[in-house]
Amino acid sequence: MFSFELEYNDNNTKARAGRIKTPHGEIETPIFMPVGTAGAVKALSPEDLNNAGAQIILGNTYHLYLRPGTEVLKHFGSLAAFNSWNKPILTDSGGFQVFSLAELNNITEDGVSFKSHLDGSSLYLNPEKSIEIQEAIGSDIIMSFDECIPYPSDYDYVLNSVDRTTRWAERGKKAKKRDDQALFGIVQGGVYEDLRKRSAKQLTDIGFDGYSIGGLSVGEEISTMYEVCGYTAEFLPKDKPRYLMGVGTPEDILTCIGLGVDMFDCVMPTRNARNGTLFTSNGKFSIKRADLAFSDDKVDENCNCYTCRNFSRGYLRHLYKAGEILALRLNSIHNISYYLSLVKNSRYAIKEGRFKVFQEETLYRLKEGNNKI
Amino acid sequence: MFSFELEYNDNNTKARAGRIKTPHGEIETPIFMPVGTAGAVKALSPEDLNNAGAQIILGNTYHLYLRPGTEVLKHFGSLAAFNSWNKPILTDSGGFQVFSLAELNNITEDGVSFKSHLDGSSLYLNPEKSIEIQEAIGSDIIMSFDECIPYPSDYDYVLNSVDRTTRWAERGKKAKKRDDQALFGIVQGGVYEDLRKRSAKQLTDIGFDGYSIGGLSVGEEISTMYEVCGYTAEFLPKDKPRYLMGVGTPEDILTCIGLGVDMFDCVMPTRNARNGTLFTSNGKFSIKRADLAFSDDKVDENCNCYTCRNFSRGYLRHLYKAGEILALRLNSIHNISYYLSLVKNSRYAIKEGRFKVFQEETLYRLKEGNNKI
Repeated sequence: MFSFELEYNDNNTKARAGRIKTPHGEIETPIFMPVGTAGAVKALSPEDLNNAGAQIILGNTYHLYLRPGTEVLKHFGSLAAFNSWNKPILTDSGGFQVFSLAELNNITEDGVSFKSHLDGSSLYLNPEKSIEIQEAIGSDIIMSFDECIPYPSDYDYVLNSVDRTTRWAERGKKAKKRDDQALFGIVQGGVYEDLRKRSAKQLTDIGFDGYSIGGLSVGEEISTMYEVCGYTAEFLPKDKPRYLMGVGTPEDILTCIGLGVDMFDCVMPTRNARNGTLFTSNGKFSIKRADLAFSDDKVDENCNCYTCRNFSRGYLRHLYKAGEILALRLNSIHNISYYLSLVKNSRYAIKEGRFKVFQEETLYRLKEGNNKI
Repeated sequence: MFSFELEYNDNNTKARAGRIKTPHGEIETPIFMPVGTAGAVKALSPEDLNNAGAQIILGNTYHLYLRPGTEVLKHFGSLAAFNSWNKPILTDSGGFQVFSLAELNNITEDGVSFKSHLDGSSLYLNPEKSIEIQEAIGSDIIMSFDECIPYPSDYDYVLNSVDRTTRWAERGKKAKKRDDQALFGIVQGGVYEDLRKRSAKQLTDIGFDGYSIGGLSVGEEISTMYEVCGYTAEFLPKDKPRYLMGVGTPEDILTCIGLGVDMFDCVMPTRNARNGTLFTSNGKFSIKRADLAFSDDKVDENCNCYTCRNFSRGYLRHLYKAGEILALRLNSIHNISYYLSLVKNSRYAIKEGRFKVFQEETLYRLKEGNNKI
C-alpha cells in the first residue's frame, strides 16, 4: 500500500523528484510537511492546509500520547478521523521530544523513562510502545524509536548510541502489526561520517520503507549540517524516500533538496508566523515593523495564498500589534504556503532539468532580500 | 443610499422583518452583527464570517481611534478596504468604551476627556470628533455620541444626561459631512419610562435614519431590561430600524425581537467561544467537560457550520484543552453561525406568521436543554 517511485534525477545536483503512495493519497516529492504537534497544525484548519497545498502533515507521537492519549485515538479510529485531515500523516517516534522536552529519568537498553512535561507524571517509551502508539494514531508513515543525543557528543557515546538505535529499530520492525503503515529507520551518528555510514548500513541491512536523517539542526554549524546531510544521503538507497527531520529554513530546504533529500518538516514557518516573522521570495521580515503601518503591499508579490490575496502588510501589522488571533492564522497561512510553494517550485525545476539555476537564483534572492523588504 | 423597508409585521407579537439597504449591500432584519472590535471579529476571517452568514459587522470607534488610528484608516480609504470586509459595517460612537473602559478625566457639555486604556495617553472625544472618526472609518451606519451612565443612576442625573445626549446627537448630525453614511440616534434614559419616552421624543424630533436603544444590559435585572426595551421600542417610529446595543444571550435576542427590535450586537458568541462555551439549539455547554473526551457528537445536531460539518465535540475538547489556537476559531465559527441562524430563523418565522410559536418553542428548548447536553 506504500510505495516510492523515483521520477526525475537532476543532472547537476543530487536533487530528485518522486512520488510516494500511501493509503490516504499520494505525495509529490520533494515535500514539506507542516507540523501538527497535538493533532492540529497550530492556528490552521484542515481546509487552510488544503488551500495552502499541503499534501501530508506530521503528528508528534509524544504529544499525542500525552494528549488526547491512545484510548481517545482508538475510540475515534485514527488521528485522521479525529482531526478531519483526509490526506497522509507521518508521525515521529516520540524520541526527539522525550530527549528534548521531557525530564529524563533513565535510559536503558530496553527504553526510556521520563516525566511528562505537562503534569510531571512518570511515563515510559521503548521501541515497541512507540510503534503501538503510532498504530493507534494510524499514521501512514511511522518512525522507529531512536535515541536523540545532545550536540556535541563524543565519539564513543555516539558509537554506542548508533548501535542501540539500530537494535531499537529492529525491535520496532518486529513489533509492528499493521501492514498499512510504512516504517522508516532513522539514521543517527552525530557529525561523524563513519558513524553515519555505520548507522545507514545497519538500517538498510534490516530494511525499511524509507530512511530519516535525524540528529541534525541541533546546534552544529550550518555548513556542518549540510556536510553531514550530504554524505548521509549518499549512504542511503536511491529507491527509498529520504527524510531530513526537523529542518529548516528555506535556505536549508533548498540546499538539502540539492543533496538528495525528499522530505522535510519543521515548526519554523508556523512558529515564526506566530512571532510575526514572514517568509517571502525576497527573504523574511517582521510584520511588527513600524514603517509597515501604511503599507499597501501584500506580504509577497509572488504569493497567491488567502492572506496575500486579501490583506496588506499594513492590516497584518495592525492585527499583530492589536493581539488579534486572526493575525496568527493569516501569518501561518502565508508561511506554510510559502514553504509549500518552495518545494513545489523545486520539484518543477527538477522535472525540467533546471534545478541548479533555480536553487542558485532563489538562494541569491533570499540572501539579498532579507531585511531589505 | 440608506433605506429601511418594513416587510412583515407579526400579528401576535411586536416582531417585524425588514430590509436595510446600504452602499455596501443589503441586510435582512432581524439581524445579529458580530463585533469586530479592532477591525477584525476575534479569531475569524472575512471568509469565515461570510460562510457563517454574516450580513454586517460592527466596529468599535474607540478601539479603531486608538489603533490603528484615523491616519491609517484614511490612507487605506476605509475600514472595509483595510480589513477586506465587503459587506456593511456599523460603528458605535465610542461613548460606551470611553465610559466603561477608559479612565475618565472630565465630562463637560462639550465632550469627554479620558485616558487611553492602552498607553494612558490623554484623549478627547466629543460629538463632532466621534463623527469625524466614523467618517474616516467609512462605516455604512454610524452612531451619535452618547453619555453612557452607570447603573443604577438617580433620576435627576439621568434626566440631565438624556438632555445632554440629545444635544450631543444634534451636534453630531450637524457635524456630519458624508451623505453615504446613515446616522442613528441613541435613546438613553436608564430604567425610567418617562425619561426613555423623553429621549425618544427628542431624538425623533431631530430625525435620524434609525434609533438605537442604549444603556441596557448594564447590570439591571433581565425582566427590567425586557420591560424597558419593550416600552422604548414602542416610543420609536415604525418606519425606522431599531437597534438594541450590546444585547445579548440567545434568549434575550429572541425575546427582544418579539418586542420589535431589528438589530443586535454582542461580544457574547465570540467571547464565550474563546472561553469554551458553545451555544446550541438545546442550550449552551462547556466544551471543557471531561465527559466529552470520547464524544462523537457534533456541537449542535441542527447546525451546518464548518465546525459542525467536520469536527466532533471530542476533538474540539482536545483542541481546547491543548491550548490550540484552532479551538478558538472553530468555537467562534460555531457560535456566530448559531446566532446568525437564530435571527435568520426568526425572520422566516415572522414572514410565515408563526413567530410566537417559534419563539416559545425555542425558548423552551433553550431552557430545558441548558447543561443537559
